[in-house]
Order: sequence, then C-alpha cells, then structure tokens
Amino acid sequence: MAEAPGTLEGWFVLHDFRRIDWAAWNRLSEGQKEEAIAEAEAFLKAAEAVSDAPEGSSAAYAIIGHKSDLLLLHLRPDLEALQALESGFSRTALGSLTNQPYSYFSVTELSLYEASARGGSTDPEELLKNPAIVRRLKLQVPDHPYICFYPMNKRRGETVNWYTAPIEARRAMMRQHGETGRKYAEQITQMVTGSTGLDDWEWGVTLFAREVLPIKKLVYEMRFDEVSARYAEFGPFQVGRRVAPGDLAGVLLGR
Amino acid sequence: MAEAPGTLEGWFVLHDFRRIDWAAWNRLSEGQKEEAIAEAEAFLKAAEAVSDAPEGSSAAYAIIGHKSDLLLLHLRPDLEALQALESGFSRTALGSLTNQPYSYFSVTELSLYEASARGGSTDPEELLKNPAIVRRLKLQVPDHPYICFYPMNKRRGETVNWYTAPIEARRAMMRQHGETGRKYAEQITQMVTGSTGLDDWEWGVTLFAREVLPIKKLVYEMRFDEVSARYAEFGPFQVGRRVAPGDLAGVLLGR
Amino acid sequence: MAEAPGTLEGWFVLHDFRRIDWAAWNRLSEGQKEEAIAEAEAFLKAAEAVSDAPEGSSAAYAIIGHKSDLLLLHLRPDLEALQALESGFSRTALGSLTNQPYSYFSVTELSLYEASARGGSTDPEELLKNPAIVRRLKLQVPDHPYICFYPMNKRRGETVNWYTAPIEARRAMMRQHGETGRKYAEQITQMVTGSTGLDDWEWGVTLFAREVLPIKKLVYEMRFDEVSARYAEFGPFQVGRRVAPGDLAGVLLGR
Amino acid sequence: MAEAPGTLEGWFVLHDFRRIDWAAWNRLSEGQKEEAIAEAEAFLKAAEAVSDAPEGSSAAYAIIGHKSDLLLLHLRPDLEALQALESGFSRTALGSLTNQPYSYFSVTELSLYEASARGGSTDPEELLKNPAIVRRLKLQVPDHPYICFYPMNKRRGETVNWYTAPIEARRAMMRQHGETGRKYAEQITQMVTGSTGLDDWEWGVTLFAREVLPIKKLVYEMRFDEVSARYAEFGPFQVGRRVAPGDLAGVLLGR
Amino acid sequence: MAEAPGTLEGWFVLHDFRRIDWAAWNRLSEGQKEEAIAEAEAFLKAAEAVSDAPEGSSAAYAIIGHKSDLLLLHLRPDLEALQALESGFSRTALGSLTNQPYSYFSVTELSLYEASARGGSTDPEELLKNPAIVRRLKLQVPDHPYICFYPMNKRRGETVNWYTAPIEARRAMMRQHGETGRKYAEQITQMVTGSTGLDDWEWGVTLFAREVLPIKKLVYEMRFDEVSARYAEFGPFQVGRRVAPGDLAGVLLGR
Repeated sequence: MAEAPGTLEGWFVLHDFRRIDWAAWNRLSEGQKEEAIAEAEAFLKAAEAVSDAPEGSSAAYAIIGHKSDLLLLHLRPDLEALQALESGFSRTALGSLTNQPYSYFSVTELSLYEASARGGSTDPEELLKNPAIVRRLKLQVPDHPYICFYPMNKRRGETVNWYTAPIEARRAMMRQHGETGRKYAEQITQMVTGSTGLDDWEWGVTLFAREVLPIKKLVYEMRFDEVSARYAEFGPFQVGRRVAPGDLAGVLLGR
Repeated sequence: MAEAPGTLEGWFVLHDFRRIDWAAWNRLSEGQKEEAIAEAEAFLKAAEAVSDAPEGSSAAYAIIGHKSDLLLLHLRPDLEALQALESGFSRTALGSLTNQPYSYFSVTELSLYEASARGGSTDPEELLKNPAIVRRLKLQVPDHPYICFYPMNKRRGETVNWYTAPIEARRAMMRQHGETGRKYAEQITQMVTGSTGLDDWEWGVTLFAREVLPIKKLVYEMRFDEVSARYAEFGPFQVGRRVAPGDLAGVLLGR
Repeated sequence: MAEAPGTLEGWFVLHDFRRIDWAAWNRLSEGQKEEAIAEAEAFLKAAEAVSDAPEGSSAAYAIIGHKSDLLLLHLRPDLEALQALESGFSRTALGSLTNQPYSYFSVTELSLYEASARGGSTDPEELLKNPAIVRRLKLQVPDHPYICFYPMNKRRGETVNWYTAPIEARRAMMRQHGETGRKYAEQITQMVTGSTGLDDWEWGVTLFAREVLPIKKLVYEMRFDEVSARYAEFGPFQVGRRVAPGDLAGVLLGR
Repeated sequence: MAEAPGTLEGWFVLHDFRRIDWAAWNRLSEGQKEEAIAEAEAFLKAAEAVSDAPEGSSAAYAIIGHKSDLLLLHLRPDLEALQALESGFSRTALGSLTNQPYSYFSVTELSLYEASARGGSTDPEELLKNPAIVRRLKLQVPDHPYICFYPMNKRRGETVNWYTAPIEARRAMMRQHGETGRKYAEQITQMVTGSTGLDDWEWGVTLFAREVLPIKKLVYEMRFDEVSARYAEFGPFQVGRRVAPGDLAGVLLGR
Repeated sequence: MAEAPGTLEGWFVLHDFRRIDWAAWNRLSEGQKEEAIAEAEAFLKAAEAVSDAPEGSSAAYAIIGHKSDLLLLHLRPDLEALQALESGFSRTALGSLTNQPYSYFSVTELSLYEASARGGSTDPEELLKNPAIVRRLKLQVPDHPYICFYPMNKRRGETVNWYTAPIEARRAMMRQHGETGRKYAEQITQMVTGSTGLDDWEWGVTLFAREVLPIKKLVYEMRFDEVSARYAEFGPFQVGRRVAPGDLAGVLLGR
C-alpha cells in the first residue's frame, strides 16, 4: 500500500456554470431585460463584496462556446454559503432563464510536500502560519482577465497506476511538474482544488491568465511532463473572460 | 472460480435525486409557492415519521452543484413502500416541477467476513441476533448535517480482476480498508448498500458526516488502500446538507 | 476461428420503458386523468389478452428510480405486432404524456448445448418438439410480482476474448453458470433473449422474481462465475413490480 | 506502415432517423393530422421517385424501440441532394414535429480486393465497367421488408490493431467474413458504406432482409469471424420495417 | 521526460455549430421568417466582411445530419471578438431559435519542425517573417465549397503513448503524415488548430475541400499512417457545404 501525501485545505469552491436560454431571454420586453440585468448585477456585486459571509471571494466570467455562457466562481469557508449563492442566483429573473450544464465543487488544496518545498516544514500547524501558504488556501481571485477550468484524475490503470507508485517517485514527478508551472507564473496564477469525495474528478485546476495563449502553451508543455504524459486524465475544458457586474449588459444585450 | 463472500441484507434504500425547474417555479405566484412548500413539508414530515410503513427511516438533503438540487433518502423494508414515496412526491405540486436526474436503488449490506469480524460468528442466523449488526442493516439515518453519495464497482479488468482474486486476498484488502474507515468513525457514519442486480453499479456508499472536509480526507486516504487503488471504479459523487422539512422554504425562497 | 454455437429462437420481445411527464400529467383535470387511466387500462388489458395477435404474452411493471416509470413487456411472433403495441400506446392520452428513455428489442433464445443438456439432442428439429423447450421459447410471462431487466455483452478484449475462446471452454463455463442459476429456480424464472444485430447489446436478461432480494443474491453470486467474472459486460439494470391493468390508478393517482 | 486497400465509391447516403413528438402530434386536430400525413406522403413519394435528382434511390422504414420512430434512407450522387431532402422533410408539418436522434452520412464503398474477387481485375477503371459492381455502388434499395443499420470501426487497440496488420492478413480475414455473408445472400442484401472522415464511425452497414430472424443469425455468426471477434467495434443497432408512403397513416394513426 | 515541440500560433478560431428548432421556426409567420432571414444575412455579411475587428475571416456552412444544421466559422485575433460573434448571433431572431449542440475553440498552430521544413529555420522570429507561414497562421477561409471538421487527441495509452515517445520518432511520423496530406493538396486545404488547454481535445482539424469524396479518401489513407494507426483518437466528424449569406433562405425555406 502506497503512502498518501498529507494535504492542507482552505476555502470551499463552487464553479457554477450557466447556459442562457436565449429563446426565453429574447421573449422578454426591453424593460424586463433591463430589470433582469439590474437584479443580476446587484447579485454579482454583493457576491464579489462577500456581503453574505465573513470571508471569501467571487468573480464572474463569460465562457466561450456551447458548454456554457457564464461561470460564477465562488470561494467561501463553508458549503452553506456556496449553496445560498447557487440557489440565490437561480431565483433571480436572469438565473431562472439559465440552466446549469456543469458545476464543480471542491476545496483549495496544497499537498504537504509542495507546501514543505515552499515553507520549509512538513508540520501542518507550522505551515498554516506561513502567510504565503494561507494566501493560496484563501485565494482572493486575481484580476487576470482570462480563466480556464478543467477537472482531472490521476490514472489508476491496469499497469500504470499513480496510487500504487512509491511516494518518492510521485514527489519527484510533482516537483518537475511544478517547475513547468513556475515558468508561466508571470502570466498565469494557478489554483488547484481537491475534490476526491466531493465531485466526479479528483482535482479541479483553475488558471487565471493575463492572456489566452499562455493557457495553451502551459497546458501543452505540461502534457510532456511525466506526471501528465503517463498519469493524467482530463475532463472538459472551459475558457472565458472576466465580466465585471457592470459588463453583464454587454454579454446579454451586446452593447 | 473464486468464492463469493456471504452477505447479510436489511432494508431497501432509494436515493431519489431531484432537480428543480427554476423557470417553472419562478412562474408560480407567491401564494402558489407557499402552498407548494406547505404540501412538500407535509410530505417530508410524514416520510420522516415513517407514517407509510411499519419501519424505516427518511431524510432530505440539499445537494450542491448542477447534478441535482434535492436528495430524498428513504429506507424501507420493501420496494413497494419506496415506490409509493417516489411517485407520491412526483404528484405533489413541488415534485411535479422537478425531474429526476439520478436515483439509486440498493439494499443495506454487510459482508459476512466483515460481520464476523464484528460479531465473532459467520453464521447468518447468529449474526442477525447481534444488535450492532441489526442497527447497521436497519439504519436510522443519523442527524449528521452533511451527506456524500457515490456508487462504485470492483474492477473486472483484463489483468486486474477482483472477481477472480482469491477470497483471502480480498478479505485482507477489505480489512485494511475498514481500518482506514474506522479512523474517521467519529466524524463519518458510513452506509454500504449492495446493488448488484438492482442498479447500474455494484455498491452504493453513503457517508453521513459532521463536517464536509473529512469526507474529502476519508475518500482521498482510502484511494491509496490497495482495494481502491487497484480495484475500485467510481460513479458520480453528490454532496449536500440535511434539510429539515421546515427548512424547505429556505432552499426555495432563500429566507 | 472459433465455432459459433447453434441457437434456437422463439418469440420476438419488446421491453418498452416509459417515463411519465409528471408536470403535464398534473396539469390534467381529474376527469381527464380518469379518462386517460381508463383508456390505458383498456390498452393493457387487450395487450395481456393478446387480442392483437394469434399468440404471445404481455405484462406491465412499475419501475423504481429515475430510469423509467413503466415497463410494458410484450412477446409476439413478429416485429409488426410489437410495433403496433408500441405506437398504439404512444397514441393513448397517457402514452403521449410519456417519453421512452429506453427500450430493448430481442428474441427468446436457447443455445443448442444448453438445449441439448435439457432435451438430449442437438438437432434443432428434434428439440423444437420438446414441450419444455417450446415453453421457454414461447414464454408465458409468469405471475411473479417482481422483474429485473439488463442487457449484456460477452467481452471481446485485447487479451480476454469470448469470441476467440474454444467452444469447449465456453460450454463448460456456461454449464457452471447455469448451475448457479438453477439454485435460484424456485425464486426466479430467467428469460434470456438474443439481440446481436437487433439491439445495442448481445443479450437481454429478464428475471421474474417472487421477491426482490434473490435478484441481488443471484446476480451477485453469478458475478463470481468465471464466465461473468472474466467475460461479462453489463448495461443498465431496471427493477420493478408487476402492475395489473386495474392497478394503474394506484401508480398515477396514489390510491 | 501498413498498406491502405484501394476502394471504389458510388452514391452518397443519408440515414435520416426521426423521433416523433407524440404529445405535439396528439394535440393536432383530426384535420391537421390528415393534412400532415398527406403532405408527408407526397414528400416520400417524390423522394422514392427521385424527382429531385438525376439518379438515386429512397425508402422509408418504421424503426422499433426508443432510438427512433422513422428512418428516411436516401442515396444520391451528391451531398446537396441529401441535404435538400433532409431540410425539406424538416419543413413539412410532420417533419417539424420530429427531432433527429441520429443520422449517418456515408458513401457506398467496395474495397478493391473484394471488387477484384468479383470482377477479376484490380484496375478501378476496369472494375467500374462491370455492371455487377456498378449495381452495388449505385444500389437501388431492394424491396425487402426489413432493415437493420449499424455503424462500426476496426479496432486500433494498444496491441490488437487492424491498421497495423499486414494487408495479406486483412485480406484473408475479409474474404472469410465475406463467405459468412454469402451464406445469407438469399435472405439478406448487404450495403456497406464508407464513412471515414464523413461521420463518427468508419463504416455503416445496412442489411435489407426478407425476415427479421436472419439478421440476428447473420450478425451473431459473423461475430465469431476473426475480423469481428478481434477487430470490430460496433455502434448502435436500429431495426425496422419498410413503410410505403401510403402506409404512413398506419404508423401515425394506427389504422 | 520527452521533449515538447515548439509551436507557432496565429488567430483564435471558433467553430460555432447550431441546430435549428424547426418546430419553433415553422410557427413563425412568413413575414417573421423573411425578417429573421434578412437579419441573419446581414449578420453573416458583416462577419464575412470582418467589420467587427481589424483582421480575421468568417464563413458559414450547412452541416448534413443530426449533429447540427449550421456551422459559423470565425477566425479572429482575440477571444473577445469571437465571443461577440457568438452571442451576437444568439441575439438574432434566427439565432435564438437555435441551440448549440457543439462548438470548438482553438488557435491556428504550426509545429516548429513542420514550420522549419517549410521555412528553413527553427527560429520563431525568423519563421514569422515568412509570408507562407503567416498565411497559414492567419488563414483566409478559402472558397472551397465543402468542409469537414473533427477534433483529435494523441493517445496516452498504458503502453502506446505519444507523449513519452522520443521527439525524433514523433518528427518522422509527422513528416510521413504530412506527405500523405500533400498528395491531396490540390483538392483539400487543411487547417490544424491547437486546443490543448482551450477545449476538450488537443487539436481541431478543418478540411476545406473542392469535392466531398477526397475528404473520405484522405482521412482513410491517413488512418494507415503510423501516427494515426497507433496514436490518433478522434472525436465527432461534421461535414457540410458553404452557404453564402444570400443562400440562407435556401436552407431555411427550401427555395
């Protein structure tokens, strides 16, 4: 039996993807549309101000392609706050004209050997005193204009199996993987969230990017890392751009 | 041919997941909404009081994310009672505004070597006289505020095959797996239900938890157990929190 | 090239699964509901009386869980009669408020070595004179109150391949499998239907059971048979209970 | 690198599967239904008369089970004619009450070694002068009352890979496979269409049959051919019976 | 760890597939249909004229089969322009009667060893001065009347794994693959777009063709190239023909 690495966790995270029912939206009068936008803007503003909870962070994105139109990203200390935001949006006029083609529930995560590489200790108590580590576990969504989200597993194949590999081999592969990531640190802030037991994949990866192209460059280069080449299994990828509450009208009315 | 382990079974279980049609819900008048909530509350209260059957247990949960909004969990001695609860809810005003994106039909199960480890005997008749075993097979849903449900199979791969492994090897792996589970016993009550022949996966796993994070910690640590690392295949995971009948208004009206 | 076993076939079979649109159903007036139930009862009565064809058998079941609400099971000598029953139900008021989430088209089948084990001969002509064999190929749906249906394939993996295994090995595995089945003969009547070329899986298995639990016990025990452990691939499982035409009101109105 | 076999192609083929929205259909008045049937009959008659193109062939089938209700099968010399038939039907009153759960776009195909076995030459120009070959590439849909359609791939597994097998081995396996098919030539006319690059599978197989049972017998026997046992991957199977334009009322009104 | 090949990128690309809701379309009056067509034509004309951005290229296609009815293909320098085109179409009367069954977001890509084979250098700066390379990265959609789109991955199997193969072996396989493609250069212009990190597959392949049959011939011949035979995994294929803005009425009204 292989050794499980220790992990540190922070805020819970809900990626709430929404698809707009354009036929229903277009049936609204201009006045109804304006009202719906104003209500949704107020909802997003309150969420970004974290007026619903003692701490957390929220942001909205317009997603490209058929998989969804909007991503409401919320980080909060507990599941209750995330659920209130989810059903709260569904009860708005705009929200009730959307469906949820996808979502992801996870929790910010730092594996202990990664943490120790950064913080010099493998003692969770010690590590959680390190402000750099706390900033990653209680991540304020950065202002980067672009986002990419995808869930992933580590393979448990009949011969290639991450979960039976020795921890030293896993640690070395993860360290090399981290080096590839750090080459892009200027361009991309990466948020890894754990979801084993919480959602259908083992991790969620959220990339906050200053430009779109580095997303592709980073993920492509990483695919040749041994850990990805041999062990990674990927779910759907969704890419979009930040939408401030006041920009919702742009998405919905094209102005 | 490998030996099949004996099993003990208790109540049948229906995990009845529902997704709310928010557009239809929002079209109701305030009065219609209040009426629908009152009717649904009465339905849930009666179910939790097991007023429909000589014995059993029921509880409702609000599920996070797009996979569903509500889970109605029912344990009863027979399929008829479960079906009456399922179609009964569909006939309520609220129920008819939901669809069923998922459900799971199974029966509480204890494998004999697990039972014997607990009860000192491998004779089913004897074991069923043990109150601790009876309490697991006729499980009263505990008050824990959080729930996680997922179905699973044991792999029958071309080279890695649970069903052709010797029973001693399987027993040893299951025993080690049980030890991992017991580390979390304070935090998590686990209900294993068998569904071979009853639903699409071989087992359902329901975790009743005092907090959300231990769900992730437990399932992640277990993934390194040999039985999970090499043999487990997992279906969708759904996580939520307990909703008392009187709290339905909170989910639906946000108050 | 491995030898194909001979097979005997009888009636064609349609498993016609229906899901009720509860929102549409609940919008009907009480009078419309009564009319719809009366029409559907008459439809089912006529089908069970095989008033549409020279011979055959039909029965209806209420299925538990989200996969469907009703199963209309029809056995008839030809495809035309089955199609007439399928579209005939869709044209009733109740039928038009259902969709078909699933169905299965197959034909009752007896493999020749199984038949010969029962009938003492491998000559199809001879075998078809054996009343026990004819009763299996022209099966009158038994009165058992419970049903389980699932489709299955025999694996054609890169190394584990049923279709390249020698016929003697296949015969021995099937014989052992049959013995497991016969242990449950008191409780469960099994109908195997062939569907290679007719539907998406190679066989359908329908279990008619006196109680629900033996369904789970039988399928679980069989999973350790070499033929299942190494070669079986399973589709979705659906379980339900017999509904006489006069009991439709119970399913739809809860009385 | 393995050698690609030469192929001859003829007409393009669209298998246009339609599912009827029975709830919408049943909402039509009797007069609207009659009008819709008359319009659809006229559409099918014109298609079967190939009044839209210099050459081709068309036929309609009623499909059993949930996968679809109707199959409109069209062979034409170009994609434009097939698209006109597809959107033309969608614009009829009946067509607009259907959705397309499936379709298949392909082109009639003869592999050169099969052609040469029949025509004595491997020169495409020569072969295309052979009337027997032309009849297969420009196939007039035969009158057989039953149809079976399924798409398929040749496996490209990690160890079992058709596309790296030597052409002599592939040719021998295909020849044996053809022999199995010819045993059923009296009962079944087979149309193989190529779809690599045109649709999601590499080939479509359409069986025109005098009776239903031989479809099952043929496909089952073929599954033991080495080429199927080791290399074939199959998509969904759909089976139905021929519906002359004048028989549409029978399908829709049950008379 | 295998070496990642360098890549050059150009414009971002959105393949925006749409399915028409024919029932809703047929409910429009003749006047509403004419208006909707005129609005959609104006939208397409403006997109093809790239009136929304400093540079780019757009074209529309009618797709055959159930997977979609229309493909709006847009190339632009940034994601914002592509999103504006996507939501802009959804806000038109026609667009709001469509759903998006599929889409693909990617970026034109040239791998450096392919580029160097063409441009004599492996220095990105140098290569981007080569007009032939720029023309491929900023591709003006050619006038070819037919299109084929499919996404693909390179396999990361347990034993057959592109991402662990030595770069020399990958380069040799890609060179041979390119030779197969060049045999069809007269007939087919190929656009390869990278989508690792941007969408669910690693690449999109768009074939612009003078005739339909060479699409099939090219993709079939390529399947025997070692790189495809052993390493390629393919997503859905969609095929259609160019529709000029003025031809939309033909698709929608059949005239």
